[in-house]
Amino acid sequence: MPGHSPPPTNPVLVELRRGAVVESFHRGAVAVASPGGLIEAVGDCARPVYPRSALKPVQALPLVESGACAAFGLGSEELALAAASHSGAAHHTDRVAAWLIRLGLDQSALECGAHPPGDSEAARLLAASGRLPSPLHNNCSGKHTGFLTLARHLGIPTAGYIRRDHPVQALVEAVIAEMSGCDLGTAPCGIDGCGIPVFGLPLGGLAAAMARLADPARLPPARRMAAAAIVAAMAAHPELVAGPGRACTEMMARMPGIVLKGGAEGVYVAIVPSCGLGVAVKIDDGAGRAAEVAIAAALVRLGLVTAEAAAPFVRPPLLNVAGRTVGEMVAVEVLAAS
Amino acid sequence: MPGHSPPPTNPVLVELRRGAVVESFHRGAVAVASPGGLIEAVGDCARPVYPRSALKPVQALPLVESGACAAFGLGSEELALAAASHSGAAHHTDRVAAWLIRLGLDQSALECGAHPPGDSEAARLLAASGRLPSPLHNNCSGKHTGFLTLARHLGIPTAGYIRRDHPVQALVEAVIAEMSGCDLGTAPCGIDGCGIPVFGLPLGGLAAAMARLADPARLPPARRMAAAAIVAAMAAHPELVAGPGRACTEMMARMPGIVLKGGAEGVYVAIVPSCGLGVAVKIDDGAGRAAEVAIAAALVRLGLVTAEAAAPFVRPPLLNVAGRTVGEMVAVEVLAAS
Repeated sequence: MPGHSPPPTNPVLVELRRGAVVESFHRGAVAVASPGGLIEAVGDCARPVYPRSALKPVQALPLVESGACAAFGLGSEELALAAASHSGAAHHTDRVAAWLIRLGLDQSALECGAHPPGDSEAARLLAASGRLPSPLHNNCSGKHTGFLTLARHLGIPTAGYIRRDHPVQALVEAVIAEMSGCDLGTAPCGIDGCGIPVFGLPLGGLAAAMARLADPARLPPARRMAAAAIVAAMAAHPELVAGPGRACTEMMARMPGIVLKGGAEGVYVAIVPSCGLGVAVKIDDGAGRAAEVAIAAALVRLGLVTAEAAAPFVRPPLLNVAGRTVGEMVAVEVLAAS
Repeated sequence: MPGHSPPPTNPVLVELRRGAVVESFHRGAVAVASPGGLIEAVGDCARPVYPRSALKPVQALPLVESGACAAFGLGSEELALAAASHSGAAHHTDRVAAWLIRLGLDQSALECGAHPPGDSEAARLLAASGRLPSPLHNNCSGKHTGFLTLARHLGIPTAGYIRRDHPVQALVEAVIAEMSGCDLGTAPCGIDGCGIPVFGLPLGGLAAAMARLADPARLPPARRMAAAAIVAAMAAHPELVAGPGRACTEMMARMPGIVLKGGAEGVYVAIVPSCGLGVAVKIDDGAGRAAEVAIAAALVRLGLVTAEAAAPFVRPPLLNVAGRTVGEMVAVEVLAAS
């Protein structure tokens, strides 16, 4: 199998230091792209990687460019949720539930499965209430409600909307291919945590897709407007894209004008409209903690964010259970080799 | 700083496969030792690594060899808890609370800090009760109660028992040095998640310490008996050493006669009394999920466990939120290069 070839030896991007020892370290790759394609790379940016939830801003494009978003009167909050990996707090789940009602549906239409809220306080409240997690709490419930909206707009059955052969996923797949410049017909494919198809893309293709969201000038008009609307919605509602205390939300709050999105297994992307750049990180071992540090460091090294704004993310302290600082995570080679 | 030298390029030990892509992969090292020292190595087994909680069986030795264990009438359940990273369920916390009472102490003497139970059902019940996590729920509360027992037995103040300059830690440090064959005076040092000192040891030294627990014949009599008692207690109470559903507990249940212990940041050790071997794994990136797979695979490759017994651990399926199998973790090179 092509994907099972020997893995690359990517550079160490992030170290976890405790006392005088590098306790753990994370290798990975960083791709920087303009709408024309890859312009800077650290590590192997050609190997297929699954973008996971970092692709949500792209997966939301058909919702807008099809006219479904306008037809159902959705606003920027719903768009932000469509591109979100939210924490399952009430301000997320209430909005998704209300959106489903607009579609004439309820949570039983969601095929993403249920998991407890990522937000610890929301999880505590849910447990204390004696209720079980529902699909609304799934971090992908906004994305899935976007898919349901598209199916309703197209007037087709919603059941099975997560399958690759459903018209909703066919539309999404075509948009991913166009935005990334990749042939998905030959790309390796898998199933995501929420049940939809995932496609192995070169990290450079993922960064290029983000650059085309950042600078959509050369896209067809409907997609251009859709891209601008999604990026603006994410920038306007960082708290809906993830949740309080999460790197994605906190970084957007401290880096105005830059849209960030994480994905499972160590993926992170940045969309930088001010200069039409897209940045994508994949940590080899799948560690989200390292992807957060690496994307923040990449933005600093590219001169897109001040060291001051990025400081809490580039060198986060490591606290032990009693709250004592016992180490730190440190970005060590992100774009230094370029 | 010596620990901040370039990290090794260790072999890939474990892959996470999803569809046709190796989505993430974990590099690391494996050391196999007899009481005489390292006998087999994959990757860099000389670099200092923090054993973290994998060292708990060694850290429990002074509790027994000092006579403190006998003086307070402790049994194998308390000993297992002293070497445990437990899940904070009632059958753990109740026993630790009762043990503290025997010492004339309560949970306020514990300096490990509080965190929610690792066991999701215990965490749910605690949240539902409206109570906050206490130091009893800390996975290290048994180890810390062991330290308190030693301080009481020595007739010295318990306060500050986590500090390197407290007589309890001085005793523990001396035992770690003797069991691992390492000079801790020059070893890099840090602070553990629960506040006690951690020492950077070569992985080979950690494996050797485990081999000396597995075959304590050449140790002084008091330590020999202490080692045998701790290993027997862990083997007798796998459910106290971790908790239901956790790899450590489940592997011990399926691999009778082998004692296993995980540590934070991707450390795992095995103690194999039947042949006097110790095995130690450190995953470079700190991933516990990979350490579990690698230690199980190492035991199979060494002929110490049947492939059948180890099957659920060597190749665990990856399920998505809806419960569908979407991939697997696979051990790829553990001891294959030896």
